[in-house]
Amino acid sequence: MMAHAHDVLGIGNAIVDVLARVDEGFITRHGVPKGSMRLIEEPEALALYADMGPAIEVSGGSAANTIAGHAALGGKAAFIGRVKNDQLGELFAHDIRAGGVTYATPAAENGPATARCYVLVTPDGERTMNTYLGASVEFSAADIDSDLIKASAITYLEGYLWDRPQAKQAFVTAAQIARKAGGQVALTLSDRFCVDRHRDSFLQLIRDEVDILFANESEITALYQTHDFSEAMRQAKADCRLAALTRSEQGSVIVSGDEVHSVPAHPVDAVVDTTGSGDLYAAGFLFGLTHKRSLVDCARLGSLAAAEVIGHLGARPQADLKILARQAGLL
Amino acid sequence: MMAHAHDVLGIGNAIVDVLARVDEGFITRHGVPKGSMRLIEEPEALALYADMGPAIEVSGGSAANTIAGHAALGGKAAFIGRVKNDQLGELFAHDIRAGGVTYATPAAENGPATARCYVLVTPDGERTMNTYLGASVEFSAADIDSDLIKASAITYLEGYLWDRPQAKQAFVTAAQIARKAGGQVALTLSDRFCVDRHRDSFLQLIRDEVDILFANESEITALYQTHDFSEAMRQAKADCRLAALTRSEQGSVIVSGDEVHSVPAHPVDAVVDTTGSGDLYAAGFLFGLTHKRSLVDCARLGSLAAAEVIGHLGARPQADLKILARQAGLL
Repeated sequence: MMAHAHDVLGIGNAIVDVLARVDEGFITRHGVPKGSMRLIEEPEALALYADMGPAIEVSGGSAANTIAGHAALGGKAAFIGRVKNDQLGELFAHDIRAGGVTYATPAAENGPATARCYVLVTPDGERTMNTYLGASVEFSAADIDSDLIKASAITYLEGYLWDRPQAKQAFVTAAQIARKAGGQVALTLSDRFCVDRHRDSFLQLIRDEVDILFANESEITALYQTHDFSEAMRQAKADCRLAALTRSEQGSVIVSGDEVHSVPAHPVDAVVDTTGSGDLYAAGFLFGLTHKRSLVDCARLGSLAAAEVIGHLGARPQADLKILARQAGLL
Repeated sequence: MMAHAHDVLGIGNAIVDVLARVDEGFITRHGVPKGSMRLIEEPEALALYADMGPAIEVSGGSAANTIAGHAALGGKAAFIGRVKNDQLGELFAHDIRAGGVTYATPAAENGPATARCYVLVTPDGERTMNTYLGASVEFSAADIDSDLIKASAITYLEGYLWDRPQAKQAFVTAAQIARKAGGQVALTLSDRFCVDRHRDSFLQLIRDEVDILFANESEITALYQTHDFSEAMRQAKADCRLAALTRSEQGSVIVSGDEVHSVPAHPVDAVVDTTGSGDLYAAGFLFGLTHKRSLVDCARLGSLAAAEVIGHLGARPQADLKILARQAGLL
């Protein structure tokens, strides 16, 4: 494989998170499936926001969080995703570039505003996400920069893109360009309801185009329609060259050919907000993978990065991940 | 004194904070006096933002933080301050209203964008603030709602308003309306450099119009041009009916007539970001005062609220202050 300008290129929705603490009653009252992500249109976004308490705003987006985390560890990373030319779009672009990520997708001049995700954080630290896609809804194959894909060792795609035909097409185009150029394709399943909506085409994609799969326990069991994690793991092992399966406080399991590694979770003082924990796990894992670490160390780097974002509101690292990784003997 | 619809009305700049962690070198390189607040124009704001790392956005503004904290404790609060009709203005208005605060200042349709404060947080938790006043710069006596002032037991003013003649005039107008209606006037000195710029007129204001004064150690010693806190305290006692003087980890001293109370600081696990600590001290103190607590309990409520915001990035409470106050036996 030739040397690449970027370790990882992420392609996903460009979203600003609006995070607020709510009680369990708020989730019930709004009829949102707890722990999931659902798409909402503008009227519902406005109604939900009006009912939410004081919030904080932090750049988000699943693949974007992963890319930001990868760069925070010192990796070379790039991102493709669409904002509008508005204050929240400037905020998103600033944050990802300021973290050292190559980001050149032009902001839309017209059309809907920059995407927002209204993240409801319950007292148990669980997050329930309500996404207004705004400018991201028009993301299409035209936004795909093939030179950037060819210059990246791994192209990382979020399953959420599968929800809209245009974005799905962009996604498949990107995967094909990456593999043709000798790069690898990584996928995160994103959300169990997203898996339910797209099971067959996800399975086909995983078998045909995906080198590295990320999923949590509920996503991988949804994919294989089983309640048994071991059974899901066995099937993932047959379908994927490499799968990293996360199990919250039980750590993660890495399966690759004949190798199976169970790696404990990194200790967390207090679970403040799980938003971005899966995204940051992928960040650490991919950093390890592109820096020739063992699979166990990849998982440990993933868990370390996930633990950092669990400790505060928001899905982007606030502490210096390089220092944390050095303290843990991983860098 | 007649019953008031609001315990406290805050008048101040309506600002969204943009907070990022920086190292000490960043502060030096940008020539900003560490720990202070300075006003910057748009070109410098853009240059500073371009050089800052990834940030988070939280509603801010000194008096606005105090009012939000007061409401979070269960008090009846109102705020007057000027945003623009843009995304950051909507964010500010949402947050303060969602906290239960009466906020009805119309957003400006034209002119500069909503004010931002670029808050640089160094590893010691100290914050250095760079404020682009934007829409707040046009705040004037026309924005003062005299009915709201008359309906408030205490009108709380931030010293920062003194920096612009129009806002200063609005400030004096508000104080006069409040006193004429039988309400009390509270002032925070805001910043030691702000005190240096306006010492004589602050002293006159304190002697003529202010019932309750908030200041930290560096502000009160700057006001009385002494290095001796005890001397400053002695002079404050002569000039003010009631002064609450904060001393960071050394707690606070309350002086009122013959009474002097030293109250220890509320324990803080780790100093993450001191942004808003003085503002939240005032919030707790004024809540106590308007709910007939002893001066010592007022100070304890102030310290408790300050301790909460010191524990995370941003100047608005993230935990439930009512629960914290109940746990401490203060509510």
